Amino acid sequence: MSRRNAFYAQSGGVTAVINASACGVIQTARQHKDRIGRVYAGRNGIIGALTEDLIDTGRESSRAIAALMHTPAGAFGSCRYKLAGIDRDRAQYERLLDVFRAHDIGYFFYNGGNDSADTCLKVSQMAARLDYPLIAVHVPKTVDNDLAVTDCCPGFGSVAKYVATSMREAAFDVASMAKTSTRVFVLEVMGRNAGWITAAVGLADDAGTPIPLLLLFPEIAFDEAKFLTRLDAKVAQFGYCCVGVSEGLRDDQGKLLAEAGTRDAFGHAQLGGVGPMIASLIKEKLGHKYHWAVADYLQRAARHLASKTDVDQAYAVGRAAVELAVRGKSAVMPAIVRSSDKPYRWKIEAVPLDQVANVEKKLPRDYISADGYGISAKARAYLSPLTRGEAFPPFRDGLPQYVRLKNVAVAKKLKTSFSI
Amino acid sequence: MSRRNAFYAQSGGVTAVINASACGVIQTARQHKDRIGRVYAGRNGIIGALTEDLIDTGRESSRAIAALMHTPAGAFGSCRYKLAGIDRDRAQYERLLDVFRAHDIGYFFYNGGNDSADTCLKVSQMAARLDYPLIAVHVPKTVDNDLAVTDCCPGFGSVAKYVATSMREAAFDVASMAKTSTRVFVLEVMGRNAGWITAAVGLADDAGTPIPLLLLFPEIAFDEAKFLTRLDAKVAQFGYCCVGVSEGLRDDQGKLLAEAGTRDAFGHAQLGGVGPMIASLIKEKLGHKYHWAVADYLQRAARHLASKTDVDQAYAVGRAAVELAVRGKSAVMPAIVRSSDKPYRWKIEAVPLDQVANVEKKLPRDYISADGYGISAKARAYLSPLTRGEAFPPFRDGLPQYVRLKNVAVAKKLKTSFSI
Repeated sequence: MSRRNAFYAQSGGVTAVINASACGVIQTARQHKDRIGRVYAGRNGIIGALTEDLIDTGRESSRAIAALMHTPAGAFGSCRYKLAGIDRDRAQYERLLDVFRAHDIGYFFYNGGNDSADTCLKVSQMAARLDYPLIAVHVPKTVDNDLAVTDCCPGFGSVAKYVATSMREAAFDVASMAKTSTRVFVLEVMGRNAGWITAAVGLADDAGTPIPLLLLFPEIAFDEAKFLTRLDAKVAQFGYCCVGVSEGLRDDQGKLLAEAGTRDAFGHAQLGGVGPMIASLIKEKLGHKYHWAVADYLQRAARHLASKTDVDQAYAVGRAAVELAVRGKSAVMPAIVRSSDKPYRWKIEAVPLDQVANVEKKLPRDYISADGYGISAKARAYLSPLTRGEAFPPFRDGLPQYVRLKNVAVAKKLKTSFSI
Repeated sequence: MSRRNAFYAQSGGVTAVINASACGVIQTARQHKDRIGRVYAGRNGIIGALTEDLIDTGRESSRAIAALMHTPAGAFGSCRYKLAGIDRDRAQYERLLDVFRAHDIGYFFYNGGNDSADTCLKVSQMAARLDYPLIAVHVPKTVDNDLAVTDCCPGFGSVAKYVATSMREAAFDVASMAKTSTRVFVLEVMGRNAGWITAAVGLADDAGTPIPLLLLFPEIAFDEAKFLTRLDAKVAQFGYCCVGVSEGLRDDQGKLLAEAGTRDAFGHAQLGGVGPMIASLIKEKLGHKYHWAVADYLQRAARHLASKTDVDQAYAVGRAAVELAVRGKSAVMPAIVRSSDKPYRWKIEAVPLDQVANVEKKLPRDYISADGYGISAKARAYLSPLTRGEAFPPFRDGLPQYVRLKNVAVAKKLKTSFSI
């Protein structure tokens, strides 16, 4: 097999460690110069491929590429852009392959979640149908941890570490204030459909550092009366209580609480999240003074508190993707396989993309405690290893130092343009 | 002078490093056993003194006391409880002195902000009036950084480091997403009356890591049209923009925007903060997709990202308070004096409490850029050193390990009780 170029793109919501996967891809490709020529990145994800806006990663120094290991978010830009099915939008797939052909791209590495796995699979199928030789490998990534088959998803472990640490710290704060002031603290976290991040908040409370804590999962319909009773009992017993709530909390009709029609002073809808809503409900019904926080992007961008395990796994899936590709494996994803909880051991195995694409892995019911407001021992055994180890970025003058790449564009070869 | 006991209490909103001050007080007192007998802490601040609910810190191991250096929030509990003037509520002061007399307390260390400095001064005056020999020293603390005379306040440097780091990380995230999704990120920070924390957000953007950023200070009346024009220009130029907004942002009538009458789906007021309000205003008027975060307690409890400078200063003011006390200085506060910006050098000097009590130090106008939306070079030179150095806590199994003290109560000696 001759030497061909590679294309790499970042897709969907970014994470604290997606650049570590990019680093794994680029560094490993540089070790396979007999098989992989240039590594081009899509500027703003797949849009870069469609518009022939390619970045030549070869123009970046080894040092800059190494610095991706400790830099959050997507160094080449990401996008929220889902390709339709082949039959519905064949032109887009043909355009992709036109661009790939023009730049002799023989390897397609797509770094994303469920949708991206699907796109990667379709690109692979389309290439086969059109007799274009292409090896397509999906590189898993999502803070939501909802990809099938893989034991966990790079990006999640760092969010888990962040939300658990933040809740533990806030709990110490509330405990200090509870005598005369704040008694309830509500933290809203990401994970609209799956409660993995909400579950990770539960790690704040453990045998060494017990914390009165209630979790509101997207998988459990919100029962106002039951929740308020539980909360009031916690406050009575401990003097305070913490609440971790998923942005995707729903009522028993399946309706998102956050979309229940909030309006601000300007008359705009969609003002607050479910966190402040739960907090004010508590104040209204029980009278407890509250504080609330919505971490939003802070939780998924917090490279300063990344999990070393997560960083290692993000790099490993990037590296494995290239190793699979040069061995000729296509339409696969390197998955993380857990071989043991104690001690935590993991390895990478390739899984066929059709087992991953479009499948959403929700939090299993037995990861949630019987009462629906906490995590089980099983969840704890699963979650804890993913948060372990610290991988602090370098700091200068008090602040973390993150790299910005030069992102030099590759000269266009096609005469046609493409509108997104 | 004979050996007498000491009382120490934490007051008001807690910080990531107030326990480092407690550590400084207790460890230093233990080095002056000829002068200081036991160190009692007030359970929940001054309330512990009023209700004779004292904690014997002598029951804590040296190791536990040392662990206060890396533990956020108030280890003995704090309170929001302001003593009235001596003439208005003489009984409270007399009660305090009754408790002190019963437990032979000759040293009063009060760890707090403006109000606490005032209380400390009044306790000192009352003791003198009643011929009760008492040395009263205020230990400065406040994330708001608004205490007079001292160059900075322990607690602030760590919040500054947290908000600047968080904004930098979120900016990398938004930059990745801006092509097809989020273009504006709004972070609401603390500091209701003084814009010190808002200014610290400005450190996220520096020569090495430029970020399109607008700051909304509590000192500058919000001008909607001007702000939206500025923001839109940033988005046009950079593709995205970040906004740091003080919870205390006011309109030109001096009215808090956050209190402009927000209502949630339950019909409750006080749902959202000003952060989500600004975000939805941007969406409404300019159409940019936004994300917002409200860090709330996370910012002041984030011991995992504390500034080493801040931790050192918090310890130093605690230690200096005891050293001043054993030298017979009363009605004073150890202040941080900056002797140089580059290299940053500081020392501790005692200042009379009447220069500190009830004075609020706002952000000077020349710390804000001419256009009102950024920080000046002067602000940068002031702020940056306060965030420098890392002082990570110990981690186990992925999470920071914070100490909880035994907080053993001292046997009561008074026959009378006191209601708060």
